[in-house]
Amino acid sequence: MGFNEAEKPDLPRIGVGMLGYAFMGRAHSDAYRKLDYMMYPPPAIPDLVAVCGRNKEAVAGMAARFGYKGYYTDWEEMLEDPRIQLFDNVGPNNMHEDPSVRAVEAGVHVLCEKPLARTTEEARHMWDAAVKNNVKHMAAFNYRFVPAVRKARDLIQTGKLGRIYHFRAMYLQDWILPHFHTPLLWRHNKDVSGTGALGDFSHIIDIGHFLLGSRISSVQSTLKTFIPERALMDGSGTGKVDVDDAFASVVEFENGAIGTLEGTRLASGRKNYHVFEVNGEKGSLAWNLERLNELDVQWAEGEPAETRGFQNVLVTESGDPWIENWWPPGHVLGWEHTFIHEIYHLLDCIIYDKEVAPGGATFEDGYNACVVADAMVESSETGRRVDCKY
Amino acid sequence: MGFNEAEKPDLPRIGVGMLGYAFMGRAHSDAYRKLDYMMYPPPAIPDLVAVCGRNKEAVAGMAARFGYKGYYTDWEEMLEDPRIQLFDNVGPNNMHEDPSVRAVEAGVHVLCEKPLARTTEEARHMWDAAVKNNVKHMAAFNYRFVPAVRKARDLIQTGKLGRIYHFRAMYLQDWILPHFHTPLLWRHNKDVSGTGALGDFSHIIDIGHFLLGSRISSVQSTLKTFIPERALMDGSGTGKVDVDDAFASVVEFENGAIGTLEGTRLASGRKNYHVFEVNGEKGSLAWNLERLNELDVQWAEGEPAETRGFQNVLVTESGDPWIENWWPPGHVLGWEHTFIHEIYHLLDCIIYDKEVAPGGATFEDGYNACVVADAMVESSETGRRVDCKY
Amino acid sequence: MGFNEAEKPDLPRIGVGMLGYAFMGRAHSDAYRKLDYMMYPPPAIPDLVAVCGRNKEAVAGMAARFGYKGYYTDWEEMLEDPRIQLFDNVGPNNMHEDPSVRAVEAGVHVLCEKPLARTTEEARHMWDAAVKNNVKHMAAFNYRFVPAVRKARDLIQTGKLGRIYHFRAMYLQDWILPHFHTPLLWRHNKDVSGTGALGDFSHIIDIGHFLLGSRISSVQSTLKTFIPERALMDGSGTGKVDVDDAFASVVEFENGAIGTLEGTRLASGRKNYHVFEVNGEKGSLAWNLERLNELDVQWAEGEPAETRGFQNVLVTESGDPWIENWWPPGHVLGWEHTFIHEIYHLLDCIIYDKEVAPGGATFEDGYNACVVADAMVESSETGRRVDCKY
Amino acid sequence: MGFNEAEKPDLPRIGVGMLGYAFMGRAHSDAYRKLDYMMYPPPAIPDLVAVCGRNKEAVAGMAARFGYKGYYTDWEEMLEDPRIQLFDNVGPNNMHEDPSVRAVEAGVHVLCEKPLARTTEEARHMWDAAVKNNVKHMAAFNYRFVPAVRKARDLIQTGKLGRIYHFRAMYLQDWILPHFHTPLLWRHNKDVSGTGALGDFSHIIDIGHFLLGSRISSVQSTLKTFIPERALMDGSGTGKVDVDDAFASVVEFENGAIGTLEGTRLASGRKNYHVFEVNGEKGSLAWNLERLNELDVQWAEGEPAETRGFQNVLVTESGDPWIENWWPPGHVLGWEHTFIHEIYHLLDCIIYDKEVAPGGATFEDGYNACVVADAMVESSETGRRVDCKY
Repeated sequence: MGFNEAEKPDLPRIGVGMLGYAFMGRAHSDAYRKLDYMMYPPPAIPDLVAVCGRNKEAVAGMAARFGYKGYYTDWEEMLEDPRIQLFDNVGPNNMHEDPSVRAVEAGVHVLCEKPLARTTEEARHMWDAAVKNNVKHMAAFNYRFVPAVRKARDLIQTGKLGRIYHFRAMYLQDWILPHFHTPLLWRHNKDVSGTGALGDFSHIIDIGHFLLGSRISSVQSTLKTFIPERALMDGSGTGKVDVDDAFASVVEFENGAIGTLEGTRLASGRKNYHVFEVNGEKGSLAWNLERLNELDVQWAEGEPAETRGFQNVLVTESGDPWIENWWPPGHVLGWEHTFIHEIYHLLDCIIYDKEVAPGGATFEDGYNACVVADAMVESSETGRRVDCKY
Repeated sequence: MGFNEAEKPDLPRIGVGMLGYAFMGRAHSDAYRKLDYMMYPPPAIPDLVAVCGRNKEAVAGMAARFGYKGYYTDWEEMLEDPRIQLFDNVGPNNMHEDPSVRAVEAGVHVLCEKPLARTTEEARHMWDAAVKNNVKHMAAFNYRFVPAVRKARDLIQTGKLGRIYHFRAMYLQDWILPHFHTPLLWRHNKDVSGTGALGDFSHIIDIGHFLLGSRISSVQSTLKTFIPERALMDGSGTGKVDVDDAFASVVEFENGAIGTLEGTRLASGRKNYHVFEVNGEKGSLAWNLERLNELDVQWAEGEPAETRGFQNVLVTESGDPWIENWWPPGHVLGWEHTFIHEIYHLLDCIIYDKEVAPGGATFEDGYNACVVADAMVESSETGRRVDCKY
Repeated sequence: MGFNEAEKPDLPRIGVGMLGYAFMGRAHSDAYRKLDYMMYPPPAIPDLVAVCGRNKEAVAGMAARFGYKGYYTDWEEMLEDPRIQLFDNVGPNNMHEDPSVRAVEAGVHVLCEKPLARTTEEARHMWDAAVKNNVKHMAAFNYRFVPAVRKARDLIQTGKLGRIYHFRAMYLQDWILPHFHTPLLWRHNKDVSGTGALGDFSHIIDIGHFLLGSRISSVQSTLKTFIPERALMDGSGTGKVDVDDAFASVVEFENGAIGTLEGTRLASGRKNYHVFEVNGEKGSLAWNLERLNELDVQWAEGEPAETRGFQNVLVTESGDPWIENWWPPGHVLGWEHTFIHEIYHLLDCIIYDKEVAPGGATFEDGYNACVVADAMVESSETGRRVDCKY
Repeated sequence: MGFNEAEKPDLPRIGVGMLGYAFMGRAHSDAYRKLDYMMYPPPAIPDLVAVCGRNKEAVAGMAARFGYKGYYTDWEEMLEDPRIQLFDNVGPNNMHEDPSVRAVEAGVHVLCEKPLARTTEEARHMWDAAVKNNVKHMAAFNYRFVPAVRKARDLIQTGKLGRIYHFRAMYLQDWILPHFHTPLLWRHNKDVSGTGALGDFSHIIDIGHFLLGSRISSVQSTLKTFIPERALMDGSGTGKVDVDDAFASVVEFENGAIGTLEGTRLASGRKNYHVFEVNGEKGSLAWNLERLNELDVQWAEGEPAETRGFQNVLVTESGDPWIENWWPPGHVLGWEHTFIHEIYHLLDCIIYDKEVAPGGATFEDGYNACVVADAMVESSETGRRVDCKY
């Protein structure tokens, strides 16, 4: 009777060091903090060792807020910290290659945000280094970890849709429309980001590979910069946008399916409109990130035949992917849950030496997406159908 | 008091001869019969003079059912009938060129189903002949006559959306999926139909031209035949499908907008899924033929700002295109109404010598769609971005 | 070869006389003209003998426009015209009883718009007279003739949903909102219309009876007049609204199901929003008049279990009710098609002496709806749960 | 340079003791853990002192998992623990009154799950005690803390919708349908739960009060138990269900609006289908818990007039309630976020002595909902319209 002390769960711990602390840094940090009681028991309890950024005040604030033990302002120093076993790279695209390679060479596991790199060459370097150093490596294509998306893949990979004919995907946003007066950001700069909408929305390439279990074999693409000048943030004038505002592509997959991929930052009213549809011999699937708990499913030979149509499936049943960790049916999840599932998966792979793919995306998957993106750039420039040379 | 004889409306009359009597023949015939009391007063009352087809029993049945005065089994004979002032060509694609040209050479106005012809050359021939003979000519791109589509065009053409960045359109059906056991039809035969899904769904090319008021300038396309053999209708074996089951294309418009166009007969669960979305500087529009009374509209700077989103507009208000002829708000129209509006427009142009375009599609528009379709075929074969040579 | 005269279909003919010529008059007239070629062969060809109304100019125009042989300005005279075998009563509610009774006493079949009468007594009188005189009688609850609604009934009546627990229905419109400045109309006057929203939306009572095959046994209701004064049409001041603007009701059915019924003319943005949902032991159904071609269907034990959800069924397949007369899958019907199906059904019952119910609503069904409506008025006034005394 | 220790935020702390550890216990615990870094800076950092439950093993597991310092198996002992400043009562309904009253009498703030109590008398006792002891008290009507719901209230309360005519709400679930073989639970037992669906879905009463800022003044209701026997959990036979499976009600508000409220556990396919619609003089609002990030908004006089319709507003903009703590537009929140906002609000009220209402629900609001629920029970039994005696 009376007060009883709680026992501490006897679980492995893993030290985490993060590079970057913006939007993605907050999302990843939340996942580290939340998975150890919601995805219970976790394979390991994350120790938030340090976060790193150049702006000392900002990074100190981040560390205080999210409970990191401390912070660095130099990533090379952070990577020498022996407490760090997992390096989480949420920096801008030009900070993906070097720090990630340095980490894997130090035997540290790496989670790196997408796009994995600015170019195929950078991505290949990262992948090769990770393989050579035998660490776990993950590209943060977090939409693989939406329950409805995972369910879609499972339905396809178990043959429920039969032969796949079509994959179409869009990622539409609107934040650079003229009336928003969006200034020139690093995302508009080729040196930093590699590409624009194309890299940012490389999710839709990875989702295609993930769902179909087959890579894109060739592309015909057009990239376009509609608004080539933007105001500088400091008000001192304008600067040049040297990446794409939008892209559109016809693709063919190695399994013969054809499709379209499109991304833009200029679709008024579309906020985070990442949608796909797959049409197979035995049915169709459709999904929309803005309603991420739902999967529309149509069975070509569903019974009774007289009531065939697209079913709106709320993917919140106890048997659905990851849902047993959450709530009863109909109690919907949010966007940030993808990171919790993703990082849980990575920890599980690290602790039990499991394969990250295909449940999660590896650096190989990140590389594959870069190959496709580079082929799209080439196709846009030459006008030709370009084969993806993996 | 007592019974009063009704006066006959004193209106011009126009004699109609129709080639073909299948699905489209029924839809056009309904329009001729219905427009004279619903679109009241009509510019002219259609006299259904004759329908023509090779199967005597079938064509006789059609004539009796729809109230044609009689029928022909030879179209050349029908075109010599002096009572015929408007030739309505709803025959298969290989019957478009010759009869239509013959009609215009006889000074008869022509309405021809889409695609206007199997090839650009045929379409050009038809267009040139029509112009030379100074008759009214219309390609039956009937979706120009959906109130919501016309409204979309008006919003764009009056500048409400500002500069247009994106146009994307799909036309998805599923009727050739394996489990339907669809036999080899004329629609699978290149000699008869020219192309497959591409020609059948050329609606989406015309809708792009119509909405944007700008033609497609170049394409990158892939056509694909997924199921190359089909059972013959007589059960004697299988035959070769030599047209496309599906196509996908990236396009650029003369005004700089880019987009995607896709059509397929293999999208399970999609019955008549013709959809488009347009994204402009000041807003977006989206539409779906299966819910044809609705137009989704988003205004980039709509007030109040805190409740911006896509508006689901039920295009059934008295001020909406053609609605004054119909019912109070919310009493929805169906697919067949498009033909009533279309043929009304054509009669109006004939009687009052008005321009068919841009409200309706002329043979020039039909030709333009053929130019794009041919460029898509070429791009698919060569892999190259192909300019549209109008 | 050459021109062949079409044979006239050798079909019975039936003479039609219509009282009223407004909105509903146009819709019914269209049906008479269209059914003989679209619902082919029809059981009889309608002869549009006469239309009747007090305004001579208007009724003469109606007759000319829709092809009536002539017109009357006195309904009693019209009912003496021996050519009239079917009396179609689309007059205001206070013109339902007397003319309809006179017609049935003359051995003329009657189709009468809803609500069948202003009161239960009037409706009973009409029903009794029709039965006594052994004519066909139909209350124009036309939504029984929406393919998706008929399909819903068939699914329920064949036991596919098992025991029914819930029925809920709404009919929401917005045309009397202040900003529309709607003047005082006959629909706001109790003497003419009996009730307001309640009678106008008695559709939702009849649909409940139709779908469940069970009558409402008791009601708890509130009627409300939110805007009690309206401007007179002639601008001479304001007049009193003495009917309900809105009603809400809890109901119980004879089979034990419970539900809610609600109607209003003050739901901003709702134009013709007639919706229902039925929840049964084995599944659920939902429907919306503004998307009348669709039926949402959920099967409690549908397979595969992992993809259960509401299916959006496009009720345009060849096996769906009435669709064989129309178009291929996905080519949607409109609101006015309900009348074509309805009048076809009535003609079929007249010519072949079939039962109008349950496919169509008889005067008995119209009476039943009046009993429920009167119980709602009584419940609203007394505050008590009121049993329906049929 | 090098590693820098993070500073601990210098914030007040508040000791939390929780009674109960099931579904709601997990949701509340997550909120305590997450708010201190996501809703940053929090008004106080929650110290999870203890959780209490009768099953020692289970409660010990809960404490270990969610990081409580320890646990109790006797709630009276827990309430004597001086470290506890906030008592969170997530126990079954029959455990609401006594422990909550004991807590407030000890000067401890209380958050209590809904329904606040089994009866109006219990609720009144709790409210009176809380007021008398001058502590903060909150009834956990968490849907007040959905950003879209809060936005809806703000739109109504600032007069944007003008006079309100209608409020309708439903809460539909399906978990007691026969094919699920749900056994007899405490939720089916009147002694423990008070009522069934009615109490469970009392959310829809509170939402009505919250949105309209006006209380329900009278009700006409029917409660129904469709399935009166259920298997016992131990398989030893069946037991009686003595609460309602479903309820339906017509309501009138003090401000004159009328509406319907309905709840059921027998709506096949509806998982957590809590929806409402409000119709006012100047517009309408609609919302669905299963798509909780969205609010449908219609403006009666929205401009341009030609594109009026329901707008689908994604309530994830930086200016939307609570969103500044989360992610960029379009990155949706989940169900559990409601608790984070709710408990943040309560902590803010405790630390800065602010009013819990109307942003959050107090025990007064919980009492009000009980008054309405009791009136519904009385109306169901007597058949009469029952006034709510607050």
